[in-house]
Amino acid sequence: MSDSWVNVAQRLGADLHLELAGRGSRRAALARALREAVRDGRLTAGTRLPPYRSLAADLGLARNTVADAYAELVAEGWLVARQGSGTRVASRAEPARRPRAPGRVPPRPSPPVHDLRQGRPDAASFPRSAWLAAARRALNAAPNEAFGPGDPQGRPELRRALAEYLARARGVRTTPERIVVCAGFAHALRLLFGGRVLRGPLAVESYGLAFHRAVLAAASVRTVPLTLDEHGARTTELDGLKGVRAALLTPAHQFPTGGPLHPERRVAAVAWARSGGGLILEDDYDGEFRYDREPVGALQGLDPERVVYLGSTSKSISPALRLGWMVLPEHLLAPVLAAKGEREAWTGVTDQLTLADFIDSGHYDRHLRRMRQRYRDRRDRLVATLAARAPHLTTTGIAAGLHAVLHLPPGTEHAVVKAAARQSIALEGLAGYRHPAAVMPARDGLVIGYATPPDHGYGAALDALCRVLPPA
Amino acid sequence: MSDSWVNVAQRLGADLHLELAGRGSRRAALARALREAVRDGRLTAGTRLPPYRSLAADLGLARNTVADAYAELVAEGWLVARQGSGTRVASRAEPARRPRAPGRVPPRPSPPVHDLRQGRPDAASFPRSAWLAAARRALNAAPNEAFGPGDPQGRPELRRALAEYLARARGVRTTPERIVVCAGFAHALRLLFGGRVLRGPLAVESYGLAFHRAVLAAASVRTVPLTLDEHGARTTELDGLKGVRAALLTPAHQFPTGGPLHPERRVAAVAWARSGGGLILEDDYDGEFRYDREPVGALQGLDPERVVYLGSTSKSISPALRLGWMVLPEHLLAPVLAAKGEREAWTGVTDQLTLADFIDSGHYDRHLRRMRQRYRDRRDRLVATLAARAPHLTTTGIAAGLHAVLHLPPGTEHAVVKAAARQSIALEGLAGYRHPAAVMPARDGLVIGYATPPDHGYGAALDALCRVLPPA
Repeated sequence: MSDSWVNVAQRLGADLHLELAGRGSRRAALARALREAVRDGRLTAGTRLPPYRSLAADLGLARNTVADAYAELVAEGWLVARQGSGTRVASRAEPARRPRAPGRVPPRPSPPVHDLRQGRPDAASFPRSAWLAAARRALNAAPNEAFGPGDPQGRPELRRALAEYLARARGVRTTPERIVVCAGFAHALRLLFGGRVLRGPLAVESYGLAFHRAVLAAASVRTVPLTLDEHGARTTELDGLKGVRAALLTPAHQFPTGGPLHPERRVAAVAWARSGGGLILEDDYDGEFRYDREPVGALQGLDPERVVYLGSTSKSISPALRLGWMVLPEHLLAPVLAAKGEREAWTGVTDQLTLADFIDSGHYDRHLRRMRQRYRDRRDRLVATLAARAPHLTTTGIAAGLHAVLHLPPGTEHAVVKAAARQSIALEGLAGYRHPAAVMPARDGLVIGYATPPDHGYGAALDALCRVLPPA
Repeated sequence: MSDSWVNVAQRLGADLHLELAGRGSRRAALARALREAVRDGRLTAGTRLPPYRSLAADLGLARNTVADAYAELVAEGWLVARQGSGTRVASRAEPARRPRAPGRVPPRPSPPVHDLRQGRPDAASFPRSAWLAAARRALNAAPNEAFGPGDPQGRPELRRALAEYLARARGVRTTPERIVVCAGFAHALRLLFGGRVLRGPLAVESYGLAFHRAVLAAASVRTVPLTLDEHGARTTELDGLKGVRAALLTPAHQFPTGGPLHPERRVAAVAWARSGGGLILEDDYDGEFRYDREPVGALQGLDPERVVYLGSTSKSISPALRLGWMVLPEHLLAPVLAAKGEREAWTGVTDQLTLADFIDSGHYDRHLRRMRQRYRDRRDRLVATLAARAPHLTTTGIAAGLHAVLHLPPGTEHAVVKAAARQSIALEGLAGYRHPAAVMPARDGLVIGYATPPDHGYGAALDALCRVLPPA
């Protein structure tokens, strides 16, 4: 094996390496190198090769040597020579080494016909033009240092914009200095618990996202479920939980069952945190989406030193942005930054700067208003359809968010979800949200994400849903 | 505490919440709520308040009640009323609750006058216009599903572009199916070792980045140093390392001492991996930057089933992008994807799509050519300056990369780094790169990052450097 690589960048218009190694003549070596480059996919079908004389000059070979090597490869079918268009890589030449088999990669399931899973904002509504305009303004205005190693706390432009927005729209009390940017809610959990800023056991709600429980379990955090009722999590239970110093709550809109945490329960949670040096983690995952009822401000506003406020763009713009934020009590700021590391290792600067401009320029508010109207329309249609075709079933959690819970007769959930799968409807029952150690009675129900289907498929999705519901 | 929030969004042109709670009259409650909003920073200085009649209609209050509340706040200095421009928040009103003290957050050191630390590409050269143009094309062309929950393997557009580019420019043998996108090199290490895809002990080079050793240590991976000489890492030592099944190498350009891994050492590394079921992790951190010598192709090309190839945009474009990639042997694909999780949780889709277009459109090649020229000029100036002013000292690692090593007389490194710090020159000695368990003789030297200073400050930085070097 030799390392004599020859760069013929100028000739091929881009970097390409040819290795002239091994035994035999220079012609044979060049032919072998070119063959290898085609086989490897370094030279792709249709690529035009440099003229003989150019390549010969570059490689220090006689012109005939190159011509002979080209001719050999044309004869073998690797290259095609055409009068007037030079020598090109033949189109039958395929890059080698496709994986022989999918191996242990699980095959990707084909997408369902109807997708009513929660947690997916309408992907068709991503504000492409406004986002690009914000990116243009933000990248042009950014100082050079923005493109150097990043501050793990996040760009100051974004933290300033978030502090102003969260105060105004969510009643969060903060300054930019208390905000740490991250890659989303799960990243925040990993920083807090995987980074050993906080330790378990952690009180959680009896119904919640299994993925979050998995992230916590991976950080060796034991979770203790709080009972839920029509007023949200029974935060009054916190006093009786031995060793629990932190509680993860969804005060604005209990996930996934819906409904805000009752004012008395909010007060009880904060009082518990104050009395025992405890901490509330507030998951404000969709606080912006309120329809019929008055908005509920962030619990964090009640006591910024006892509540960690967690938000992201995953519901409000797109989960594909991977942008989230933590608003921290003063005593947690240094430990969280230490857990994050010396430099920003996660969140890209372009999206951070763009979101800052998107908020400051008013586009974020406009986007939220537009989406609120869109989701409200979707919600109305869901409610109207169910009222007409399944009046015997109750729907809750409809005043806010991107999903609703349709309650089912006891013992029927599993069969309904299976029937839905047979009809190619992606749909989740409540069972997967239930904490394994929950003691409250299990509920049967469907978590219906009404933001997910495309507009043209929404009616058919609701129709398909109604057909698998149990009769009255 | 009551949760009766009132949304006056229409009036203030954006979402704002006012809480009308507590005892006393409606006027007093409104005044208190407005005062609180100003104090919290939810209403910032200069913000125009809604006209009496609008806010009164929104809140269901008498018009006089609002007028009286406004008047009360004007009297208190919170608001300012001017004929013709309505009522605005007074400018002396500052948001409350700035952190009282920096707390345990370490104070940010003031930036050095001259920054010659390695690892920082020239931040002023970020290709803003080309990047924005690529973003525009990419975001407009992307399918809607790109803005939904992301595939943890990365966008197919980017994996296709990378497979073609890496084959062409770095001699990597791959297909898009073998590539996994991540947030950078450290993220790749965390996925491989923190995700328990691989286990230690891991052979590493005796000189390397302390940050990488720290990431490995955090994943409980023991590292075993390989001796370095003028031919790079002594991979022949691998056979004698008991229990070691993986080796992390920088074959193209040993980091930080410079120089490519000798062809025989490359062969020895791959032979070791083949014979014992071992694996090479190839850190190709700056493979694109070669100046005087022929480029060295990726080691991965020798055996794609025994080498994990790792790259990123951190040196080639900017560390602020947080974009990296792993090219994996087939048997590691499923475990790495499992470690990454069910959905993309890290890398934002906009930068992924933009980089794909940036590569496909030829802008990546153009940017690299431009930067290669820029860094070569910087390198030439460094070499010329040192030859003139410190001819008694040797510089190595100058054929490639963004940094060079200036060798110092034994025992002088610490004093030189200290003298540099006193002159406000940020500069690192080799000591911090040395593996704590290295047995090879220690070397004294400076790792000089010549890409970091701005153009206008480069001459002064070199000048300052020469002044702190030991005399002949």
